Amino acid sequence: MPKIPEKIKAYLAGFLDGDGCIMYQLVRRKDYRYGFQIRASIVFYQKIKNAQHLKRLKNLLKLGYIRDRKDGMIEYTIVGLDPVMEILESLKPYVVLKKEHIKLAERINALLKGKFDLRRFIKASELVDRFQILNYSKKRTNTSKELKNYLKKHKLYPRND
Amino acid sequence: MPKIPEKIKAYLAGFLDGDGCIMYQLVRRKDYRYGFQIRASIVFYQKIKNAQHLKRLKNLLKLGYIRDRKDGMIEYTIVGLDPVMEILESLKPYVVLKKEHIKLAERINALLKGKFDLRRFIKASELVDRFQILNYSKKRTNTSKELKNYLKKHKLYPRND
Repeated sequence: MPKIPEKIKAYLAGFLDGDGCIMYQLVRRKDYRYGFQIRASIVFYQKIKNAQHLKRLKNLLKLGYIRDRKDGMIEYTIVGLDPVMEILESLKPYVVLKKEHIKLAERINALLKGKFDLRRFIKASELVDRFQILNYSKKRTNTSKELKNYLKKHKLYPRND
Repeated sequence: MPKIPEKIKAYLAGFLDGDGCIMYQLVRRKDYRYGFQIRASIVFYQKIKNAQHLKRLKNLLKLGYIRDRKDGMIEYTIVGLDPVMEILESLKPYVVLKKEHIKLAERINALLKGKFDLRRFIKASELVDRFQILNYSKKRTNTSKELKNYLKKHKLYPRND
């Protein structure tokens, strides 16, 4: 991500507060040892006629991709723990409404940093659950419960030492 | 409106672009000589749990009022040609997505400035029509056509000199 002037960061923080969506999700991955992945994303939606605006944002951030949806909307998405955290840290001083999201994202990121550790991954998945509440998400998504059930079923759940 | 630091203006412009709504409407007024009034407003909607954020905006701008709606949303509205123009002019350098709205608002304001002039009022009402298009408004609102019909019916429509 290139260096962005402070006033533009402030604008982006306002736009994120108004229109953006910060998501952390537990995604089922059949090819993963522990069955799930934690996916971080930032999404902006606009009517197709405002496509130019999303392209401008992408040009600023130099991250993510834009795609047309079938419902006449256009979507700019940044996916991945590192790029998402990079953007959140850079806008953090100016974000107001989604401060809580950023704090939670930081805690998840701290747990996932470095070598993979199953206990910390489970702890992170519990924090991911809270994103559903922060976002009033009504979509059926995987929760830490599904992860734990999967791990138990496959005898991968860590013992209490 | 108090003096607002530039970075906060930039944030507000981003929030306006993302979540705000700028409206100019032709409102029926039975007690008005020409039957209609042009009403300018800026509206921000949020879920009730983000009420604090809208209160913060209101504290910054020192204009408008906040009201609970019946559908679990909260609404911060600034109404009036002067207060709306004051906000738009102050955020204008940072607004991106709603630049078109601001240009149109400026033209309407210029037509309505000074002593009331029916011809300029009619011209302004035609520009108000364009706001419905800019906002993809599907709500049935009065257009310049209704104003013209009213004026003709009441023999108030200006002659072509």
